[in-house]
Amino acid sequence: MSFSYISHLECPKCANIYAHHELNQLCECGSPLLVNYCLDELKKDNEIIDKERNDLWRYHKLLPVTDPDHVVTLGEGMTPLLPMPVLGKKLGIANLFMKDEGMIPTGSFKARGSAVGVSKAKELGVTQLAMPTNGNAGAAWSLYSARAGIKPFIVMPLDAPAITRKEVAISGAELILVDGLISDAGKIVASLVKEEDYYDASTLKEPYRVEGKKTMGYEILEQTESHPPDVILYPTGGGVGLIGIYKALKEFRELGLFKGAQLPRLVAVQAEGCAPIVKAWEENKNESEFWENSKTAAFGINVPKAIGDFLVLEAIYETEGCAVAVSEEEISQAQRQIAELEGSFICPEGAAVFAAAKTLREKGWIKADEKVICLNTGQGIKYPDSVTVQPPVLQPGEVMPKE
Amino acid sequence: MSFSYISHLECPKCANIYAHHELNQLCECGSPLLVNYCLDELKKDNEIIDKERNDLWRYHKLLPVTDPDHVVTLGEGMTPLLPMPVLGKKLGIANLFMKDEGMIPTGSFKARGSAVGVSKAKELGVTQLAMPTNGNAGAAWSLYSARAGIKPFIVMPLDAPAITRKEVAISGAELILVDGLISDAGKIVASLVKEEDYYDASTLKEPYRVEGKKTMGYEILEQTESHPPDVILYPTGGGVGLIGIYKALKEFRELGLFKGAQLPRLVAVQAEGCAPIVKAWEENKNESEFWENSKTAAFGINVPKAIGDFLVLEAIYETEGCAVAVSEEEISQAQRQIAELEGSFICPEGAAVFAAAKTLREKGWIKADEKVICLNTGQGIKYPDSVTVQPPVLQPGEVMPKE
Repeated sequence: MSFSYISHLECPKCANIYAHHELNQLCECGSPLLVNYCLDELKKDNEIIDKERNDLWRYHKLLPVTDPDHVVTLGEGMTPLLPMPVLGKKLGIANLFMKDEGMIPTGSFKARGSAVGVSKAKELGVTQLAMPTNGNAGAAWSLYSARAGIKPFIVMPLDAPAITRKEVAISGAELILVDGLISDAGKIVASLVKEEDYYDASTLKEPYRVEGKKTMGYEILEQTESHPPDVILYPTGGGVGLIGIYKALKEFRELGLFKGAQLPRLVAVQAEGCAPIVKAWEENKNESEFWENSKTAAFGINVPKAIGDFLVLEAIYETEGCAVAVSEEEISQAQRQIAELEGSFICPEGAAVFAAAKTLREKGWIKADEKVICLNTGQGIKYPDSVTVQPPVLQPGEVMPKE
Repeated sequence: MSFSYISHLECPKCANIYAHHELNQLCECGSPLLVNYCLDELKKDNEIIDKERNDLWRYHKLLPVTDPDHVVTLGEGMTPLLPMPVLGKKLGIANLFMKDEGMIPTGSFKARGSAVGVSKAKELGVTQLAMPTNGNAGAAWSLYSARAGIKPFIVMPLDAPAITRKEVAISGAELILVDGLISDAGKIVASLVKEEDYYDASTLKEPYRVEGKKTMGYEILEQTESHPPDVILYPTGGGVGLIGIYKALKEFRELGLFKGAQLPRLVAVQAEGCAPIVKAWEENKNESEFWENSKTAAFGINVPKAIGDFLVLEAIYETEGCAVAVSEEEISQAQRQIAELEGSFICPEGAAVFAAAKTLREKGWIKADEKVICLNTGQGIKYPDSVTVQPPVLQPGEVMPKE
């Protein structure tokens, strides 16, 4: 009975194999590496999930950390799956749910990837790492690295949510801003990694954050055990969450833990101002092209070209899902509507997903009786500029003016 | 087997009794009312805690909502109890833990009080409510009220954390700012309640938020079952959490669920700029006096006179706890230290508690081998001004300057 049933790393493009106890980044062929587990061995274990734990480490046998002493945790995971009955009625989706990734350390789903990524980095002896970020990932990796005693170097766009700078700064991490996009930040990180001895923690250039993100998929299946969802919608920038959820669905099916007839259809949601995956899907391609002059207030999905685009597209095609782009106006409307009707102040990326559910229901792609899960990736409070407010101000003792 | 074992409301000052299925505010004598349960009946129930639920509603038999259909939830509760080994070593407290109330809807522990308070208001037919707030409670009550279909009217000081205004606004609640303190906001609410038909949801003027807050105490005892804490430190403004935790400890002891020899010592932590409870405790009094010209960056504990002060002081005296005030400088230092050493960006109120633990350890009041739980009441990201940062900015393609 091992703590982890990890077996090896494998390239999804050229099938090259790598050892998990050595430090690896991309495959020689340039593709991200994915983690494999001894699922046949695990099947014989009489306890696949550690139900005593109430965080994502309940799946430790399906995670890459081999020694429990290396686990770096702030209590992340097992976020609520909330019914959205009032909004659901309005949209004509009776079984509408939100998987709320706002309820996690650092207030965004990036905590999952960094918890597992940082833990494995610690296990492999990493002492310093560098990464480009649209903000939330940098915040999460900085704070988890602080807990692990690892020194991070973070590069983020000037326009990334301001609060994430403060999270990075208070953790003691080094921070540089770039007056450009995450792709520009990526170039600075590449030079740092090349010239100094930093571990490259860029999206999918280290193989373990996807393992953290996949736990969203496990949790969704556990939380809907007797009746798995028909559709899961996910806001797609780098797409690691979608790749992870797809991997989780397949692993649970292989382990006999997925009871449905077919896997949920996975939907990649993007903003009209940055929709490379949607364009590729519409053109039935297996890779996306760089999206020029990308722009959206849903900053986390402003990723003009994702290194794992082919894996995202595979997840969509294999589950008979789709990709859909929504406008800034639709995002903003959805954000307000969810707060007013369901009491949750979610981030623009999460709001985009609900806007997409509305569109897909109107088109009939989502049926009225289908079970639909919208993934909210973070808290609205990290994006204060998305709400403007000018309340009246009274002096002490002043009486309220009658309307 | 009832959903709730609520029996009645009782005045802790004059012992007057009130029915729980009627709308009540304060006792005729002016004191807050507390909720009683049929604990003798509950003892005969073979399942006191509903362990299938992973939020505070696992304690529904000890909560005031009688019909499960009236529960208004966003998945609040069962927050992590995190070991703080690096900080603990620095402070000389080997068994130091943080109960992290940042991991809850709306990012502050106010979610507990509002989840239960709003649910019970809904059960009692309330359609509109009014309350003064230092920010976080107003945000939580607005969002939970939106989910319940109740219309809230919120009054908060101009200096309250700006993000909480936005949370109130996006929920659709009415909001007024006052250029003064929460006590000034309270006067405006009092006139609203008197002149229009608002339910008064001010701290302890409605009897149910304390029932939500007390679940922190239940969770701490469940999470430390075999070895309950010696000391619990709590940042004290209105003090509802401390009153609630004390109530929870007594209820669990009565039910046979507290296994320790004596209850944990409860510590009320305040800021030097607003320390009425500390002053009263130092003078061995049972009530506090209004603190003139109060001021602290830990805005949630800027409460010059708490209506439940006598209950807070009783909890301290009865558990042989204490009250301690810390400086702004100590709060700010603790906040940074916790992020750098333990990877958690907590709010100033939570940081005050760690500063107090340091002081009490230095004085010898906390012993080296005691188990100490610091209660962090919310996320640091709700207080962005507590961190200043001026990172270098590069243009795309620009090379990093060599140090």
